[in-house]
Amino acid sequence: MLENAGVQVIETEISDERQQPFDPETALRVLEAAFEHPIKLIANALGVPPPAMIEMGKKHGVPAALVGAKEHAIRQVNAGVDILVAQGTEAGGHCGEVATMVLVPEALAAIKNIRDVPVLAAGGIMNGSQMAACMAMGAAGVWTGSVWLATTESETSEIFRQKMIEASSRDAVRVRSRTGKPARQLRSPWTESWERSPESPGALPMPLMSLVSENALRSVERAAAGGNDKARDLVTYFVGQGVGLVENVRSATGVVQDFKSEFLEAVERMNALLDDE
Amino acid sequence: MLENAGVQVIETEISDERQQPFDPETALRVLEAAFEHPIKLIANALGVPPPAMIEMGKKHGVPAALVGAKEHAIRQVNAGVDILVAQGTEAGGHCGEVATMVLVPEALAAIKNIRDVPVLAAGGIMNGSQMAACMAMGAAGVWTGSVWLATTESETSEIFRQKMIEASSRDAVRVRSRTGKPARQLRSPWTESWERSPESPGALPMPLMSLVSENALRSVERAAAGGNDKARDLVTYFVGQGVGLVENVRSATGVVQDFKSEFLEAVERMNALLDDE
Repeated sequence: MLENAGVQVIETEISDERQQPFDPETALRVLEAAFEHPIKLIANALGVPPPAMIEMGKKHGVPAALVGAKEHAIRQVNAGVDILVAQGTEAGGHCGEVATMVLVPEALAAIKNIRDVPVLAAGGIMNGSQMAACMAMGAAGVWTGSVWLATTESETSEIFRQKMIEASSRDAVRVRSRTGKPARQLRSPWTESWERSPESPGALPMPLMSLVSENALRSVERAAAGGNDKARDLVTYFVGQGVGLVENVRSATGVVQDFKSEFLEAVERMNALLDDE
Repeated sequence: MLENAGVQVIETEISDERQQPFDPETALRVLEAAFEHPIKLIANALGVPPPAMIEMGKKHGVPAALVGAKEHAIRQVNAGVDILVAQGTEAGGHCGEVATMVLVPEALAAIKNIRDVPVLAAGGIMNGSQMAACMAMGAAGVWTGSVWLATTESETSEIFRQKMIEASSRDAVRVRSRTGKPARQLRSPWTESWERSPESPGALPMPLMSLVSENALRSVERAAAGGNDKARDLVTYFVGQGVGLVENVRSATGVVQDFKSEFLEAVERMNALLDDE
């Protein structure tokens, strides 16, 4: 029964988008395989998860959801998730259009009378003073992505990390040229040619666009690592507007320590403001 | 000399945009007339002001500038402004693409080594906890717009204020259909027809679009006030994503009092987080 309900939800999404990324039975088998591992948190990012996923999440860990609009927040809380991640448009990867500064209080207000679900703020958060800012607005914490891409432990190449240091926030563009859906990523001749060239056929719908982009961009990375300058120009990856705040490559431990001290400094800054009066 | 330098700056902008909004001499006369009044602050929003304006600002009050990107912040501080307003994409009216959460720390970092200029945060800020959030990130204060449009003292009509209460953040769209440049405003059949209808000729460049839109939208307001339902649908005005946080119409005094208590609550929330540990 649960499986059937899940199937319906997934099918609705597929027919809306005229896409067939995978069939619901395969999706369920992937979930079952995942939950054989010690998962403590499972987060769904594109739409309300099928009831089977929420049930499995509750049994093995915590079901969470990333949302980009107040309407999504309401739907996810009604569906039963236990953590909401309110992700602003400045985020890397798939994102909506509402900025973190507005989305966090808007999501908090929208779910207030439904159920007491903690809301994590996401989108643009690269340091502890931004974390303090989000928690001042009532977020229970933050969810971060791009900040880890500029660490020595990340999956990114050294070339991409160098490009992160050089980039400003306006170099993180929300385009369809990697997955077929609007996703924020580093501007490069790849994103520009697909999005703005008059000769571009336009991005293909998800999941077809990934079939075009992923292999090509892997070759680009290999050629760039081999010293090809034109390939270096083409290198791109998912990243949020927070890329404009990256000044150097740190260790993941260093990022955590910096977040802690920046958070404390921000709270001290707030208290000093009141002391002045 | 100053006037000549000013003329050059304005002419550059005009030839870039192929527009002729007014001639530099008229602009200077308008400034002179403005400064016969007791102006304490003059803020420039679209590009670096001519030196004459900054000089007059320094003589009579404080020259400020609204900026939407780190590059603009650097240019304005080098030009001599004494207050920077870092305005995120969530703001109403003309705005850029970088969100407030990222733009504030990015602008602060960019001007740190140039000159010590206070930065006000703008874009999406509708309450005191958001103000606390921005100041936790190092802003010297906030610059607010949309929150005042839902007050009894504002220039908006009662119909528009009611639409503000009904709107979510996603109803504040960044489109060219009022001024010719991207400006955030309330979605209505007016914005949708100009931007998305296949029959739309597209928005005219600034300042021509205002000649089309302003008179028409004034007629729309009059017809809506007279009870015309289709005119009510068309009613639109500049407003930021913060419109999604408007729950009721207040007095301006009420807004100020609410900001103060929300700010204090936010600081107390921060301190309580540390006490828990």
